[in-house]
Amino acid sequence: MNWIQTKTNSRFPRDARYLIGVSGGRDSVALLHWLINLGYKKLIVCHLNHQLRGRSSDADARFVEKLAGKYQVDFEMGAAKVRVLAKKKKMSIETAAREARYSFFAKAAKRHRCHTIFLAHHADDLVETFLLNLIRGAGLTGLAAMRDLSTRHIGDLDLTIVRPLLSVWRSDIDKYVREWHLRFREDATNRNLAPTRNRIRNRIIPYLEKILGRNIRQNIWRTAIIAAEEEKWLDNEVPDSTNPDLSVPKLRMLPVALQRRAILKWLRAQNVSEVGFDVIERVRSLADREAPFAKVNLPKDRHVRRRSGKIFVE
Amino acid sequence: MNWIQTKTNSRFPRDARYLIGVSGGRDSVALLHWLINLGYKKLIVCHLNHQLRGRSSDADARFVEKLAGKYQVDFEMGAAKVRVLAKKKKMSIETAAREARYSFFAKAAKRHRCHTIFLAHHADDLVETFLLNLIRGAGLTGLAAMRDLSTRHIGDLDLTIVRPLLSVWRSDIDKYVREWHLRFREDATNRNLAPTRNRIRNRIIPYLEKILGRNIRQNIWRTAIIAAEEEKWLDNEVPDSTNPDLSVPKLRMLPVALQRRAILKWLRAQNVSEVGFDVIERVRSLADREAPFAKVNLPKDRHVRRRSGKIFVE
Repeated sequence: MNWIQTKTNSRFPRDARYLIGVSGGRDSVALLHWLINLGYKKLIVCHLNHQLRGRSSDADARFVEKLAGKYQVDFEMGAAKVRVLAKKKKMSIETAAREARYSFFAKAAKRHRCHTIFLAHHADDLVETFLLNLIRGAGLTGLAAMRDLSTRHIGDLDLTIVRPLLSVWRSDIDKYVREWHLRFREDATNRNLAPTRNRIRNRIIPYLEKILGRNIRQNIWRTAIIAAEEEKWLDNEVPDSTNPDLSVPKLRMLPVALQRRAILKWLRAQNVSEVGFDVIERVRSLADREAPFAKVNLPKDRHVRRRSGKIFVE
Repeated sequence: MNWIQTKTNSRFPRDARYLIGVSGGRDSVALLHWLINLGYKKLIVCHLNHQLRGRSSDADARFVEKLAGKYQVDFEMGAAKVRVLAKKKKMSIETAAREARYSFFAKAAKRHRCHTIFLAHHADDLVETFLLNLIRGAGLTGLAAMRDLSTRHIGDLDLTIVRPLLSVWRSDIDKYVREWHLRFREDATNRNLAPTRNRIRNRIIPYLEKILGRNIRQNIWRTAIIAAEEEKWLDNEVPDSTNPDLSVPKLRMLPVALQRRAILKWLRAQNVSEVGFDVIERVRSLADREAPFAKVNLPKDRHVRRRSGKIFVE
């Protein structure tokens, strides 16, 4: 993993303080070891106990705490009832776990006044997430949200997320872990996989590689990396809006790609969540001169209507 | 296929003249029949004999000519030696066939002074092309080039391409063809499929549907439709340049997504074709303050270098 060293070093001086997310699984254990080896001394190991697997989750937490002790770095632990959260917010376990993690990271960032976190996502994660989003038809909100360097707004905090391993394959991490005889918790990363992600990792990618007779992962990785940057750029092109209504003439002036994003951002600002492509396309058609619909139905008995050149939610 | 009628009608009046590409295969035969039924009378049926399958190709051409006669519309035929072209230009048969087709369409457009062509690409074509480009790592030049309405520059001509069937699935076309008892040439569309496209159509998409237990085609279609518009927008954001060099400070000011596109467009303008992601990333790194490379190798013993704030090909 030497070649990624240069980039990480030059942007992130070793004597500064950083958070690092450590589940106790192979990837985060490898990342922690690698950063320590590079001379990053002021790390704050952050571990969230997701409480999804009872005693096994507690054992993960103790394992990570010991590891932090061994490396003589700070340790920050949190706990979340992910299953309860998922039910309450009607989210998948995977989404709820991610939300809980980031809100925990944000708290740790505030407490330690340290707004940069290292995460251990690697190239296979990127490819799997890309395919997962593709299969879900995520489209509009970006095929690939993971970038090697990004910012996430959490409450009033801007958290800088650094993923030094995003171009490193799982097999190279395996090799690294074997070479250094690193111990890790087998359960920590993989047991919480959503069934679809599991199928993509264990069946679909191997099948694609078999049928197409070459390493397609590298190609998908490229596409995902490019798409992530393009997504970021497109998203920046559409300003956040707090207006309660959308101006039809202004919407019409935008190219289709930006119309869709403007509608998505606007609906979200109106607290309309879980917006699918169909809803966006119907709202978009309200701006047509010969609009085929007079109103668009939203969940929870709300509607989008057009009147006197404005589109609004009621 | 009724619901797509409105859109086609309002933008493309029935009494105007249009070209239509007809291979003789099921999809284009259905599209031709559908347009005739809608009352489009002044169609010019365009058929290119790709000369890939000897007598069978000639039979396709005769079949399409008869069909045009039956519907009492104009018929325009061309012939291309696709295999020779592919060898000469070092292209795949599929790419060479497409180039030959568009150059034939452009000639027909000029001769008939009619710059709009209907093509029979459907929803499954879109999904297959999207996956094909993904697997090839096409990324930068767009995951999905097909849109329901687009413009293609061919020489000094702007050809407007209309694909009314882009949201219609193959199964619906099958149904339409059966209902109307349409005859078509079985060979005309499918025999020339590249092996990878064939595998995507016949093995990978069915496998994905089986493993993921739902209709993933619809989701990929959505993503492809969105990506096509975003691609168009991104491409418009980077101006065409005829400059022999790239300014380093200007390049640095662009977001990464546009840097990549600017480099791609610039290299193409310098007649550097077949540019891969790696070359673009290395050229991009030339703009770094601490550039790890002094020059980037190109095919045919050419190089990209940086000197006094300029990046140029030599």
